[in-house]
Amino acid sequence: MASGLKLGVDLGGTHVRAALVDSEGHSRGVHKAALTSRTPEGVLDAIADVAAKARAGVTEPVLSCGVGIAAQLDGKTGHVLVAPNLGWRDVPFAKQLSQRLALPVRAVNDLSAAAWGELKAGAAKGASEVYVVFVGTGVGSAIISGGQLLEGADGVAGELGHTKLSTQASLDGRACGCGERGCLETLAGGHHLVAMVAEAIEQGASAKLAELKAARGGKLDAGVLEAAAEAGDAVAAAIHRRAGEALGLAIANQVTVLNPSHLVLGGGVLMNLPRLYAQTVQGIQTLAGAMSRRKLTIAKAALGDDSGLLGAALLS
Amino acid sequence: MASGLKLGVDLGGTHVRAALVDSEGHSRGVHKAALTSRTPEGVLDAIADVAAKARAGVTEPVLSCGVGIAAQLDGKTGHVLVAPNLGWRDVPFAKQLSQRLALPVRAVNDLSAAAWGELKAGAAKGASEVYVVFVGTGVGSAIISGGQLLEGADGVAGELGHTKLSTQASLDGRACGCGERGCLETLAGGHHLVAMVAEAIEQGASAKLAELKAARGGKLDAGVLEAAAEAGDAVAAAIHRRAGEALGLAIANQVTVLNPSHLVLGGGVLMNLPRLYAQTVQGIQTLAGAMSRRKLTIAKAALGDDSGLLGAALLS
Repeated sequence: MASGLKLGVDLGGTHVRAALVDSEGHSRGVHKAALTSRTPEGVLDAIADVAAKARAGVTEPVLSCGVGIAAQLDGKTGHVLVAPNLGWRDVPFAKQLSQRLALPVRAVNDLSAAAWGELKAGAAKGASEVYVVFVGTGVGSAIISGGQLLEGADGVAGELGHTKLSTQASLDGRACGCGERGCLETLAGGHHLVAMVAEAIEQGASAKLAELKAARGGKLDAGVLEAAAEAGDAVAAAIHRRAGEALGLAIANQVTVLNPSHLVLGGGVLMNLPRLYAQTVQGIQTLAGAMSRRKLTIAKAALGDDSGLLGAALLS
Repeated sequence: MASGLKLGVDLGGTHVRAALVDSEGHSRGVHKAALTSRTPEGVLDAIADVAAKARAGVTEPVLSCGVGIAAQLDGKTGHVLVAPNLGWRDVPFAKQLSQRLALPVRAVNDLSAAAWGELKAGAAKGASEVYVVFVGTGVGSAIISGGQLLEGADGVAGELGHTKLSTQASLDGRACGCGERGCLETLAGGHHLVAMVAEAIEQGASAKLAELKAARGGKLDAGVLEAAAEAGDAVAAAIHRRAGEALGLAIANQVTVLNPSHLVLGGGVLMNLPRLYAQTVQGIQTLAGAMSRRKLTIAKAALGDDSGLLGAALLS
């Protein structure tokens, strides 16, 4: 990288965060703004606003901008095909933002950005064969091989959350947001875990889950599931065990095929549910092919919420 | 490639085949010899022998040699870690062969070589995001991304045959040659399909399989399974259906994660059992993620037995 800074942007469904990042992956402070409008114009305004805050008082040149966005997009042009959180379809986002900021812009999938951050400045620093899995609201992954991000033919590589658990589950499993059934995400993603907990409470199937929900002021998150499972609640334990088994199997099979040196695990659900994390790791160590797991390093994501922002900057 | 020819070698467990190959992937005729000894020295002799036959009367310069070998090896040095068919462990094969032939030698896994052949001169010619699956005696695959072979951290990427079908199958499934249980290969590889047929006959579970075996002079291959399944034999149909389902699911999940433009299917079992091929393709089209299957081209391997030899030459 030439001397200078890069602007990293993490575009979520409700907020946008931005920071200037140096070539070592160090941020000069993160600025954040709520999205008051989700139209492309409204989002461009919000990004221009936080970008101006991030650049205020900085005298070094800013070379480029990278944006991580929860979207399926054309990796080469940064054209957004679908961004469900923003309600976008067919938006020439990178081109529009480049005109607005007067900077070269690269837009990438948020998980690709986060994986790149972990590769360049986080848990897999210095490695070149890396598999990164994030289990948060959804389940996604990114493959890095030969030090390059594997984007696939249409830029949608890494969709681990939409691998199927079995042929049967694709017929009678939970309905996934993607329109299909039996996806890994329906068993292990935070959105579905919370939905399953809510359904169990509604059906009166678990007094423990109802009690924990009440104790938290009626708010549910995946942590409630782990707490109830730890307390011996059978319904919660079954959902929890199935999630850990499904994650262990699906990730192990990717390790077998990809043979990474480093597997990085992150995302809110895995990071905040230590028992689920441990069960997932145990599944991987048991089920991955012997040759591929022999020298495998499994590490927790190290950059937290900043991985996407740093990675997007460094990819630009 | 500079003007000149490359020597491609396909080293199997019983024979070695070699040919000179031009930069377009056209072979100048394939020469074959039986292995009379499987020691490294014996194999070097056999390769030198067919190489001499291939070069006889050829005046163009021979630039290098590529060898495809059923082995786990270090992709950079061509050092063979394990080659079960040859009984080798820790053999500095590429170095030894290079001295013997006085040519630069690159040794790669036989499936990687075959995939490269299909990429450069076969079913995926011109593509750069390709997934190749071979179902023969065993089950293996190779990933090509950005026009490069994905080798993994230890050179063992692509081991689709050792992905597991379920956590339960890893405990009580058939024992695999790799030392584990529940591998895809134990449900769909030719070696195991024939073993399951033999076991069913031995147990007197299927008169139809016994009849077909007798009609073929006591010889069994995977074709017997498909013939019996087509004739309505319940035992054969169950083994056959399970193989197709397992292949469809495992390959579909890789398509979802890798997002290739081309999926190439080859190997003796898939090529000689048209119903199993059709069922596998149907499974992939049903189970692969919607975004990844949208523009996917599924093609049969086009080069037959020569893919490994051509690919090894072109990789060198």
